[in-house]
Amino acid sequence: MYKYKRVKVSNPLTEWNERYILSIDNHEELMAALADFCRKKKMKAGEITGIGAISEATFRFLDPATKQYVDKTFEEQMEITNVTGNISRKDGEVYLHVHLTCSRRDYTCVGGHLLKARINGACELFVTDFGLTSAGRKFDPETGLNLYEF
Amino acid sequence: MYKYKRVKVSNPLTEWNERYILSIDNHEELMAALADFCRKKKMKAGEITGIGAISEATFRFLDPATKQYVDKTFEEQMEITNVTGNISRKDGEVYLHVHLTCSRRDYTCVGGHLLKARINGACELFVTDFGLTSAGRKFDPETGLNLYEF
Amino acid sequence: MYKYKRVKVSNPLTEWNERYILSIDNHEELMAALADFCRKKKMKAGEITGIGAISEATFRFLDPATKQYVDKTFEEQMEITNVTGNISRKDGEVYLHVHLTCSRRDYTCVGGHLLKARINGACELFVTDFGLTSAGRKFDPETGLNLYEF
Repeated sequence: MYKYKRVKVSNPLTEWNERYILSIDNHEELMAALADFCRKKKMKAGEITGIGAISEATFRFLDPATKQYVDKTFEEQMEITNVTGNISRKDGEVYLHVHLTCSRRDYTCVGGHLLKARINGACELFVTDFGLTSAGRKFDPETGLNLYEF
Repeated sequence: MYKYKRVKVSNPLTEWNERYILSIDNHEELMAALADFCRKKKMKAGEITGIGAISEATFRFLDPATKQYVDKTFEEQMEITNVTGNISRKDGEVYLHVHLTCSRRDYTCVGGHLLKARINGACELFVTDFGLTSAGRKFDPETGLNLYEF
Repeated sequence: MYKYKRVKVSNPLTEWNERYILSIDNHEELMAALADFCRKKKMKAGEITGIGAISEATFRFLDPATKQYVDKTFEEQMEITNVTGNISRKDGEVYLHVHLTCSRRDYTCVGGHLLKARINGACELFVTDFGLTSAGRKFDPETGLNLYEF
């Protein structure tokens, strides 16, 4: 599903850095692979960045005026020019919030709130585990979103 | 204006990590909230990344040939697919340099050098404070920009 | 070619953080400047993020179906809304994998796998050196890519 490597820093006395290079295998689904990794590492809060290439991506657009979700799937080869996301917990479970920017065959960009994406090529992420810190979420009726709860 | 949580790491002996999850409240202006946070934390150098959703964004385009600024405001609901920026000091004051990539209702992307953006939904940033390090800026006549001065 | 500043953290006992602000000089080529910096610092694994402005960028699109590269150069002033990339080693040499998202004069975005980009204005990167950790790469015939080898 993926390969990973723990990032070490130059001072062996303070190996604090729970940071990983996460390389998701070809043809895997990005969100499923990422969630599996975060669950196995028992992450309670963290950060995701990275790049990759995909053959399919489904984005969700939320119109706050109507509170209606509009999902759209792009079925075409695209580069992921950027993955940005965060890891938290909701009701005790790993909760991922990930946005994607992609470039199409004509190099123009599409993107949004990511529901799922099929890797086609490579997907190279950096995942930071904030260790003891936990970040929870709670449904907020005003926005219709699961917001951070500190 | 915002909520935040200091990120801790797994080694309590070396709580070096001045890193924050910054969750800006709905309907706030992104740059004003971020500047307020950086001033309160007395940051001298730092990094910003994150995602969110907005109802309005104003970008500035600088044409180096003419050295003229062109500002444009997008008044529509958009996802922030990526915030990338840095924190420094100019003339003793907190100085923010932030670029935004956004996806529109049709999932195509617009972006640029950010002047201001109105949160509509959530805005979830990671802010890193480089602590003792300071990074200054000075006006550079050749480019018409405030460049880093190390 | 560039100026840089090592980022220090607030605990002087644990100056572990091999992180740099890298400010590439005007009119330089981004990938050449970045590679030079990584080689001089003898990096074996690392991460790149940042923003900037350019007058030219060449992107490479790989169609996995045909395994053919399509390169395209945009010769126009653009803001870099995001640089995301990683540093590894292949055959003992520094290997950069960098994706760019750019906004054009009309604020729409283009981007992709970066071959080269000419700075026009500023280019402000954060480069993280993972220190003792090394990350290698090996050619993978299935994808036609140089994949991480852990």
